[in-house]
Amino acid sequence: MVQNGEFSIIERYFTHDAFGAWRSKGVGDDCAIIDMPAGRIAVTTDMMAIGTHFLPSARPEDVGYKALAVNLSDLAAAGAVPRAFFLSIALPARDDAWLSGFTKGLMELSLASGCPLLGGDTTRTATVGEAHAPVTISITAMGDLPSEMGLTRAGARPGDDIWVSGSIGGSYAALMHRWGKWTLPHELFPSAAHRMDRPEARNALGTALLSSASACADISDGLAQDLGHILERSQVAADVQWELVPVHPAVKALSRAMQLEAAMSGGDDYELVFTAPPEKRGLIEQASISALTPVTRIGRIIEKAPEPDAEQLRLHDERGELLLLPSTGFDHFA
Amino acid sequence: MVQNGEFSIIERYFTHDAFGAWRSKGVGDDCAIIDMPAGRIAVTTDMMAIGTHFLPSARPEDVGYKALAVNLSDLAAAGAVPRAFFLSIALPARDDAWLSGFTKGLMELSLASGCPLLGGDTTRTATVGEAHAPVTISITAMGDLPSEMGLTRAGARPGDDIWVSGSIGGSYAALMHRWGKWTLPHELFPSAAHRMDRPEARNALGTALLSSASACADISDGLAQDLGHILERSQVAADVQWELVPVHPAVKALSRAMQLEAAMSGGDDYELVFTAPPEKRGLIEQASISALTPVTRIGRIIEKAPEPDAEQLRLHDERGELLLLPSTGFDHFA
Repeated sequence: MVQNGEFSIIERYFTHDAFGAWRSKGVGDDCAIIDMPAGRIAVTTDMMAIGTHFLPSARPEDVGYKALAVNLSDLAAAGAVPRAFFLSIALPARDDAWLSGFTKGLMELSLASGCPLLGGDTTRTATVGEAHAPVTISITAMGDLPSEMGLTRAGARPGDDIWVSGSIGGSYAALMHRWGKWTLPHELFPSAAHRMDRPEARNALGTALLSSASACADISDGLAQDLGHILERSQVAADVQWELVPVHPAVKALSRAMQLEAAMSGGDDYELVFTAPPEKRGLIEQASISALTPVTRIGRIIEKAPEPDAEQLRLHDERGELLLLPSTGFDHFA
Repeated sequence: MVQNGEFSIIERYFTHDAFGAWRSKGVGDDCAIIDMPAGRIAVTTDMMAIGTHFLPSARPEDVGYKALAVNLSDLAAAGAVPRAFFLSIALPARDDAWLSGFTKGLMELSLASGCPLLGGDTTRTATVGEAHAPVTISITAMGDLPSEMGLTRAGARPGDDIWVSGSIGGSYAALMHRWGKWTLPHELFPSAAHRMDRPEARNALGTALLSSASACADISDGLAQDLGHILERSQVAADVQWELVPVHPAVKALSRAMQLEAAMSGGDDYELVFTAPPEKRGLIEQASISALTPVTRIGRIIEKAPEPDAEQLRLHDERGELLLLPSTGFDHFA
């Protein structure tokens, strides 16, 4: 935990004057000490590096904001209310301007989500030859769940509807545009870029779905892979209608191959994909309204195909033709 | 959280068949979901990189063991019982042999301390030119505290005794030996190296001290700096008797200048430094016996010196002469 002066810029923002439901009694100590209500909590951890998860040109404000957002998104997928987070950061050099921007973006979302920073650690990044590796960030976020509740990937049943929040593919399309591989329409690029730089974790929706969804995941690695996790953990298969998938408007302007790539395997959307029995449609729509978050029904859970190599996610076009999924999933070591 | 196959070696050890008091209901999900007793918890997070916190030649078993030990040591400083930890790890390449060794050492301590791995994330390290940065690890550990209790750095009062557990300086001396700067006696090097490679977190002692110690910190950055944190947070000063400081036997064979450097500013000891009123000496000795951990009284807390630049930590030799402290503290950016 915090031991050196290195962390002073971020330490200033530690919640001496705490906001939020969980307070730390150990600011500046080896541990944060928190009084907890009895009950269930959700915990997630994510590690991110500049150059791997962020473009080297990313604004520090956006890096700070998004580093927390992707963790809040994991809490959203469990239906948890964010309560506290812990930050470890490795920096290649002391760079107060960068750290100040990073902290600004981080604290903007921390305050907006009622999720205070209760502890952390800072260090210098490892060296490669004479050079220090770029900034590496690890965040652990914690949230509250009502007792006995919590969404997992394991509860989908044949007959359930498959739903997606918001729109998908925008973040990946913005990345392709920035890499010079694709060209998004000039007037639509900013909204796609905003999806990439400032993703919105769907915590209000996740919480509202606690009593209606049967399974849930956030879309970080692409709809195909993240829905695939639900299928695998629930031991089911899925029929998805491509024309129902809520593709981001900037992506709609591209070829169908590009749309498929962005929406199905692009990732970095931080929308929720979830399942629920058809009799819950009214509850789902209420949840969508109360959370101010659009949701779209894109298909149905079916029985798992018995063949061991069968593709459990089947994507159809409007004529019922099976579409070939773009290579799914993202493996950092591939 | 865990989303890719990358993590499969570690994921195997996730606690499907959980041991320990806290169980996760969300293995393989976006979050770990844990039912908690009402009460107080302690949380700490630490980030470590090969080449910065570990020698490039460190055995993966030792890296895994120590990465968890330093976090358990933070919990010990708060007096908390370890209950769960979360691991983020960035790897330069898929290296099953390394990861298998790392996991072996990590799980050895996890099982021994009753502190299960309940979640994690894996990714690839950032690149510098064509090369990937070395392994970077972030662990967040959580522990239980009785309600209303928990040790911090803030409670030391003038008149309190200053205590240290175990012996100090061994780890730093082993590092100097490995770097070829110092030469430790042949027969004493293994015990110093063991302190460096397999530090023992003092959780049993920390817990036993909950009702007697007034302030506590673990010695990660050297006695001078970590006791200094207590002095600063408690707004007091300290008189420490050098001849009472329990220097590791391998360090005793070195010159006094080397001994001072190893014991006062070396760090990486993971012993506890704590304070308590003299009337608690009996309780402290009972705690030491029940925790099977030796403790040594090394000095006394005094009133803070009023001069703004005064050295608040005063180290005396047996004749009462003030000793010059070696340059204290460790700043990764210095």
